[in-house]
Amino acid sequence: MPDVVIVGSVAFDTIEAPAGGAERVLGGAATYASLAASYFAPAGVVGVVGGDFGEKPIALLRKRGVDLEGLEIIPDGKTFFWHGRYAPNLNDRTTLETQLNVFADFRPKIPASYQRAPFLLLGNIHPELQLNVLEQVKRPRLILCDTMNLWIETALEPLRRLLGRIDILCVNDSEARQLSGKVSMPAAAEWLMAQGPRRIIVKRGDHGCSMYGPKGFFSIPACYVPKPVDPTGAGDTFAGGFLGYLAACGLINEQTLRQALVVGSVMASFCVEGFSVERLLWLKTGEVAARCRELYRATQFEPVRFRMPKS
Amino acid sequence: MPDVVIVGSVAFDTIEAPAGGAERVLGGAATYASLAASYFAPAGVVGVVGGDFGEKPIALLRKRGVDLEGLEIIPDGKTFFWHGRYAPNLNDRTTLETQLNVFADFRPKIPASYQRAPFLLLGNIHPELQLNVLEQVKRPRLILCDTMNLWIETALEPLRRLLGRIDILCVNDSEARQLSGKVSMPAAAEWLMAQGPRRIIVKRGDHGCSMYGPKGFFSIPACYVPKPVDPTGAGDTFAGGFLGYLAACGLINEQTLRQALVVGSVMASFCVEGFSVERLLWLKTGEVAARCRELYRATQFEPVRFRMPKS
Repeated sequence: MPDVVIVGSVAFDTIEAPAGGAERVLGGAATYASLAASYFAPAGVVGVVGGDFGEKPIALLRKRGVDLEGLEIIPDGKTFFWHGRYAPNLNDRTTLETQLNVFADFRPKIPASYQRAPFLLLGNIHPELQLNVLEQVKRPRLILCDTMNLWIETALEPLRRLLGRIDILCVNDSEARQLSGKVSMPAAAEWLMAQGPRRIIVKRGDHGCSMYGPKGFFSIPACYVPKPVDPTGAGDTFAGGFLGYLAACGLINEQTLRQALVVGSVMASFCVEGFSVERLLWLKTGEVAARCRELYRATQFEPVRFRMPKS
Repeated sequence: MPDVVIVGSVAFDTIEAPAGGAERVLGGAATYASLAASYFAPAGVVGVVGGDFGEKPIALLRKRGVDLEGLEIIPDGKTFFWHGRYAPNLNDRTTLETQLNVFADFRPKIPASYQRAPFLLLGNIHPELQLNVLEQVKRPRLILCDTMNLWIETALEPLRRLLGRIDILCVNDSEARQLSGKVSMPAAAEWLMAQGPRRIIVKRGDHGCSMYGPKGFFSIPACYVPKPVDPTGAGDTFAGGFLGYLAACGLINEQTLRQALVVGSVMASFCVEGFSVERLLWLKTGEVAARCRELYRATQFEPVRFRMPKS
């Protein structure tokens, strides 16, 4: 039984970026997230692919111990395809083509062996489908949910219902602003927490990420990536690393959640170093630990003590 | 003798912001920076104003212990005036009017009693003038320098010379990118450090700020400001608080520099809570200390330990 169940897209991507490109490479939120989680805990994928998916990606995922019982294969269908181009800053991207293919009719089916998994990642799919997943699982210890601007604009009502049923919402800063209608990020996070989630994770790209919750907020910078190549999947990798680490800890408290944010961020920093999932296939414990220490060094300081002169 | 000498603009600002407005209020980089520094150490201003400046702002600054021997008053001139409007996000602003007035012919003259001050802030003025200030002072322990896109575009050559003679360059992220031609911030900081400064401080607005130096990088988030009102002068307030804290410490090392970044950031967070300098006139030790503790709590975590499962 997987400890971390991940529901989301499995795809082929064609990517154009300043550093080069990659054609029809393995992608999709569930792919990135499950690979990242697999370094820490058993992970299983709930997704759908077409007959064109082939044996090679399956073998790659299996090699990392990812459980694929929840991956539906539709032999006469085609796998979700996305083609995008990144701007020189790597933050802005243009979608050149999207072929939903079998993903258009994706209705997540949670296998019996996944239904009691303690950690659930609701990847970015229609909020009604995310809600439906919640009907199929038995009280996970932690539900992390991603979403996107498309659902904020077109499916706000089910998205609001969903917010009442998840533990942590994981969004980027523009999505947090759009969903809350608040400009300041702390205000946006407070508004979102009032809708249900106990914590909000805000991804800020190369500015790092923040977690808002009952103990206030916690922020870490992004790792130092000398040569970022392809940011595709970084957010999903973050989420997978975050849940994988928590599953490995067994304990969920403020400290382990903060550490999980660090681990998620570290895993995302590896993701952007290569096209597709190439950097997520062969990571060593030492590499990951070294970046965790780097983030530790980059954020720790002695408490500030001072006495103001009398004025 | 002031411990912190601040060279820069002293101005009147008219500000339009979503939360309201303020007309012909006290502003200018040297004003904000000296007020912030004054909470920690004696600060002196080198600047110029016109006969219209009046007694009231002088009295305000003196009340906070700011030394004004270096403030030149040109009785038949008019004080630098800036009129700007902030967008709803408070990050973007439009300049509606700039009257340089006496500031157009500003030639900083460092009073004899300022020339051996250990901490020097070269506020954002023409790089040739900043270089000229360096000819007038006697080996400060630390020189912090600000600049802006205008000088990057119109005075790159003297700006480059200046970089070879300062200790810390303090810029925002877009200026760091523009000056270095590098997209990634660590790469930009490395390039800038190769031009001379031992450290680079990058201000990231409501994402916080980072310091790059020989011990790697250090990042902190922005303080939680529930209702930001007017960001004018926040960067200058940051720089003043940073140098004031270091002057109070007496010791310059990685730890005190990190703490100074925290203090600068905390002072900036007060600055944005009111129009003009209103929040910088009556701060209490306890208020400042509380926000320093808040930043401490928001950034500290236990080292991450994990063992990856065998794959």
